[in-house]
Amino acid sequence: MIEVYTDDYFMKEAYKEAQKAAELGEVPVGAVIVSKKKIIARAHNQVEQLEDITAHAEIIAITAAAQFLGSKYLDDCTLYVSLEPCCMCAGAIAHARLARVVYAADDDKGGFMRFGKKMLHPKTTLEFGIMHDECSLILKEFFQQKRALA
Amino acid sequence: MIEVYTDDYFMKEAYKEAQKAAELGEVPVGAVIVSKKKIIARAHNQVEQLEDITAHAEIIAITAAAQFLGSKYLDDCTLYVSLEPCCMCAGAIAHARLARVVYAADDDKGGFMRFGKKMLHPKTTLEFGIMHDECSLILKEFFQQKRALA
Repeated sequence: MIEVYTDDYFMKEAYKEAQKAAELGEVPVGAVIVSKKKIIARAHNQVEQLEDITAHAEIIAITAAAQFLGSKYLDDCTLYVSLEPCCMCAGAIAHARLARVVYAADDDKGGFMRFGKKMLHPKTTLEFGIMHDECSLILKEFFQQKRALA
Repeated sequence: MIEVYTDDYFMKEAYKEAQKAAELGEVPVGAVIVSKKKIIARAHNQVEQLEDITAHAEIIAITAAAQFLGSKYLDDCTLYVSLEPCCMCAGAIAHARLARVVYAADDDKGGFMRFGKKMLHPKTTLEFGIMHDECSLILKEFFQQKRALA
């Protein structure tokens, strides 16, 4: 049997959220949270729309997943996110005790990995690089377009 | 003229928020955000009530202050918080570019200072220790009581 619900499948869904963000003039980052192979939360960056720096895709998705499950801990969930989380989001991921985090593009300047994996909960598994190129490109194109308009 | 609106004054307001949290069975942490010597946002930890690990006092206060000012950047504001912020909140403080952060009790285990001040925006001034004893005690008593009831 072919496995449909692979990491690639879910990262594509996170990427679709990033595309929605781009269309709305937001820095294109998207996230989905998966429990038992089902997407229970999906979100894109809404910082500009909500004029709120806490409205990152990961934060919105974590809050939505907790509401859906009726539990503040997401220890049977995987977060797929199109960009390496920042420290704020890594801190939230740690508090929520996510079982697994998979991110696509890396963020040498703003990402939490500057401070190392120890920022996450010790039980959280971390993977990265799936759809790296597509998720990097959508960000690169967004900022290029923004600079051209400036 | 006696200066009324001192750091002590505002930290006392953050402490009052922590007291509210304790009364509601929440880990007693409170925060206020001050712009031009006026409190523009006040919040206490609401993690249990909202079943949402992102509902720290600082995050709620930052979102509220941004809504009040109509600006996602809080670069003329001071955040007073009764406990050293965690990494999630330090990340949010960095994104919001707060001018100044003053915290009371320190948090060797969960606080962002494990990773150093560089987690904040380079322009953010950091101070700590005001009302350290009161803000530590309310936390200590909260956890003692919780253990006694367990």
